[in-house]
Amino acid sequence: MFERLRGTRDFLPNEMAARKKVFSTIKKTVEEFGFFETDTPAIELFDLYSIKSGEEIIEELYAFEDKGGRMISLRPELTPSVVRVLVSKSKELSFPVKWYSIPRLWRYERPQSGRLREFYQLNIDIFGSEDARADTEVISCAIKLLCDLGFDDSDIEVRVSDRRLLQEFLLTLGITNFHDVLRIIDKREKISQNDFKGMLFDINLDDCQINKIETFLDSKGDLLQSIEELSKNHKGEGISKVIESLKKIAQNLHDRGYEKFISFDPSIVRGLDYYTGMVFEVHDRKREFRALFGGGRYDNLAELFGGEHIPAVGFGMGDAVLELMMRRKGIWPEEKLELDVFIATIGNVEKEVSKVSTVLRDSGFRVDFDLMSRNLSNQIKFATKLGARSLLIIGERDLKDGNITIRDLETGKESKILLSEVVSSPSKHLTKVL
Amino acid sequence: MFERLRGTRDFLPNEMAARKKVFSTIKKTVEEFGFFETDTPAIELFDLYSIKSGEEIIEELYAFEDKGGRMISLRPELTPSVVRVLVSKSKELSFPVKWYSIPRLWRYERPQSGRLREFYQLNIDIFGSEDARADTEVISCAIKLLCDLGFDDSDIEVRVSDRRLLQEFLLTLGITNFHDVLRIIDKREKISQNDFKGMLFDINLDDCQINKIETFLDSKGDLLQSIEELSKNHKGEGISKVIESLKKIAQNLHDRGYEKFISFDPSIVRGLDYYTGMVFEVHDRKREFRALFGGGRYDNLAELFGGEHIPAVGFGMGDAVLELMMRRKGIWPEEKLELDVFIATIGNVEKEVSKVSTVLRDSGFRVDFDLMSRNLSNQIKFATKLGARSLLIIGERDLKDGNITIRDLETGKESKILLSEVVSSPSKHLTKVL
Repeated sequence: MFERLRGTRDFLPNEMAARKKVFSTIKKTVEEFGFFETDTPAIELFDLYSIKSGEEIIEELYAFEDKGGRMISLRPELTPSVVRVLVSKSKELSFPVKWYSIPRLWRYERPQSGRLREFYQLNIDIFGSEDARADTEVISCAIKLLCDLGFDDSDIEVRVSDRRLLQEFLLTLGITNFHDVLRIIDKREKISQNDFKGMLFDINLDDCQINKIETFLDSKGDLLQSIEELSKNHKGEGISKVIESLKKIAQNLHDRGYEKFISFDPSIVRGLDYYTGMVFEVHDRKREFRALFGGGRYDNLAELFGGEHIPAVGFGMGDAVLELMMRRKGIWPEEKLELDVFIATIGNVEKEVSKVSTVLRDSGFRVDFDLMSRNLSNQIKFATKLGARSLLIIGERDLKDGNITIRDLETGKESKILLSEVVSSPSKHLTKVL
Repeated sequence: MFERLRGTRDFLPNEMAARKKVFSTIKKTVEEFGFFETDTPAIELFDLYSIKSGEEIIEELYAFEDKGGRMISLRPELTPSVVRVLVSKSKELSFPVKWYSIPRLWRYERPQSGRLREFYQLNIDIFGSEDARADTEVISCAIKLLCDLGFDDSDIEVRVSDRRLLQEFLLTLGITNFHDVLRIIDKREKISQNDFKGMLFDINLDDCQINKIETFLDSKGDLLQSIEELSKNHKGEGISKVIESLKKIAQNLHDRGYEKFISFDPSIVRGLDYYTGMVFEVHDRKREFRALFGGGRYDNLAELFGGEHIPAVGFGMGDAVLELMMRRKGIWPEEKLELDVFIATIGNVEKEVSKVSTVLRDSGFRVDFDLMSRNLSNQIKFATKLGARSLLIIGERDLKDGNITIRDLETGKESKILLSEVVSSPSKHLTKVL
C-alpha cells in the first residue's frame, strides 16, 4: 500500500465540494475588489528565491537539479513569480495592476496544526500605486473576504502598523542596528519577557532603551486614536511622515466602516528585509491559531529583480489556518455531494436511459444512472448517497404506456409522468440543486 | 532579469480570463455527467510511478530526494495518485465512483507544439463498474465536452478499439510475443511502411503474418459496421467476447446520437502495459495536432497498488493541444478583462468613493477606482482598458447637489443621478457583465 507524503492532503469529492464553495466565495470577493486572476509556474529557477526570500524560506525550499543541470525549486511563495512576470511585461501593462492568484505552495517544514508542506495560499497585490488608498484596498479586501466567509469583528482582529515607524522610533533612541533589533522583536510573542530583554541586552542596548522599546511595542489599541497619541509624542520629520500615511489608511478604513476590525500594533514586523511601509496581520481574537493573513507594502522588490521602481502592496492567506478557524466557528461548508437527477431502472431500458440522460445533460442537469444492474432499492440507496435531488424511475412495464416515475428525494413526493413530457421540457419537471 | 523555465507558462489576467471560461465549460460538462471533483498532492513518493507508469514517463520524471531522504517526484500523471486514494479509502466509498480532476502535471521532455513541461490535464475515471455503459459514459463525456467547447464531428474523430482485440487476433496468427509486436504497432504512424515491416521481421514474424497484421490494422471505419465485419471474419471464443463488448459500446454511443464522431481503429494500442480493454483516442480530423485525448479501460491497476480488484475506465486530456485546436478553429475565448464599474473622480471625493465602492461591492459588483490621482480623461482610458461596463463619475462640483454621472461604456449613454439613488438601489442603475 502506498501512502501520501506527510504534510500533503487528498480531497475526496465531499471534502472537495466544501472547499470549492470556500474558494468560490474567496474569488468572488476578490474580484468584487477589482482584482484579476493570474497563474504562474509551480517550478521556478532557484535563484528567484535566493535573491529576496527570508532565510527561513530558503531553508524550507524543495529545490533540486533538473535533468538539464539547472537548480530549480517548487515555489514556496508566489510573490517572486509575480514580480518576475511584472518586470518582464512592465512595458505592455497599464498600471496600477490588481492581481490575485491561489497558488499551491510547498515548504519543507515540520507539519503541524495550520502548517503543511503543500498548501494553497490566496495572494492579492496592487502594483504601481504608492497611494495609501492602495493599502486600504488590500486591507479592506482581507476584511470583506472574512466577512463573506462568515466571520465578524468578534472573531478576527486586523493588526496594522508601518515597518518604518519602529525604525524611526529606534533612530530617536539612537539605535541603528535595525536588523538585529527587528529580528528580536519579531520573536517577542514566542519568548519570555526576560529572554526578550536579555537578547536586546546582548546586542548592546541599555536598560533605558529596552524599557522605551517595550513601552512603544505595548502601545496597542484603536488605530485612529493610537495614531493621534503617536503624533502628539513623536515630532521628528521622518516619523511624522510615517504617522501621516498611517493616518490616511486609518481614516479610509473608517470611512468604509471597517474600524471595528482594526487595531494598531507597532510590534508587527514581518519578513525582515521585505516590507517597506505598512504591514498588517490578521489573527483570531482568541489567538488560538497562527496568523491567518500577513501582508503589507514592499516597494523595492521590482528593482531587486532587475526592473524599474514599482510600488507594491498585498497579502497572502494560507488555506490551512483558514480551514481550522472556519471549522472552529462551525462555518466550514457541509461536506456532501450534490447531484440533480439519478435515473434508476427496472428491466432492460438501456436505450431510454441513454436518451433521457443525454437530453437532461444537454439541458444542464447533473445526471447519473445505474452502472451495476442493481435492484431498485439499492439504486435508490446509491442515489441518496450521491446527494441526488430527484429520482427518475424508468421501468419496462410502465414504459409500455410511455410512463416513468419522478420522485423528489427531499420531500418524498412521487408522480407518474409521460417520458415524452420529461424529454420535451425537463426544466418543468425537475429542479437543479443550486 | 529572471526568466521562467522552458516549457512553463505565465498567464496574465486577460489570458487567464479566457482559460477560466474554457475550464469552467469543461467542469460544467463533466459534472453534468455525474463526475465529482477530487484533489491530490502534486508531489508523491517516486515508487508510486515506478510501479506502473510506462518507461517513457519514468524517464521524464521530475524526481529528487527531499530533505528527509525520501525519493519523491512531481506527478507526471494523475492516475497513480487517484488509485492510491481509492485503495486506501475503498472501505468507506460507495462504488461505482465517478471522479474528475484537472491537475497540473510535470514531465521533463523537449518542449514543442502541444507538449509542455508543465501543463494541466483533465482526468475523468469511473471506478467499480465493469459494465460497457461505464465505457460509453467516458467516451460520451469526451465527445460532449468537445461539443460544449464548440467543436463538431467535422473537427474531431474518436477512434475506438479494444486492446484485447489485437492480442486475440495475433493469437490466431500464432503470435505470442505481444509486448514486442504492440510496441512496434504503437510506432506505426510515425515510421515508414518499410521500417514497420522491417521491425516486425526483426522479431521473427514472417511475410504472411506481417501482411495479415497490416490488413487488420487498416480495417478502420464506422464502428458498428466494422464490428459486424469482424464478427463475420473472426469466430474464436476469445475474440468473440471482445467483439461483443465493443458492440455494446457502439450500440450505446449510437443510442446517444454520437455515432458520427466515432470510428473503429484496431491500430490504437496506447500505454502498452496499462490498458486491459477498450481504448480510445481523440484526434483532429486533419491530423495537424497530437492526440487530444487518450483513454480506456484499466481493470488491474488497483490490485497492482495493493488493493482489491477495482475495474476502471477513464481518460486524460491535456490543455496544450486543446488550446491549439481551439485557436485553430477560432473558438478560443476572447482574451479580455471584464469589470462591472469603474469610479472616476474629480477633486477630493475620497469619502464618497469609499462609500459607493463598498456599497456596490456588497451588492456583488466588481468595482475599481482611481488610485493614481489621474485626470478624468486618463481615468476613463484606464477604465476602458479594464473592460469596465459602467463608469461612475463623482465630482466635487456635482456633489454639492448630491449628483453623480453614470456612463454606459458600451453605448456611451450618460445620465446624471442622485448619489443616494445609486447607493440605495445599485442594481436598478448598473448592470453586471455576465
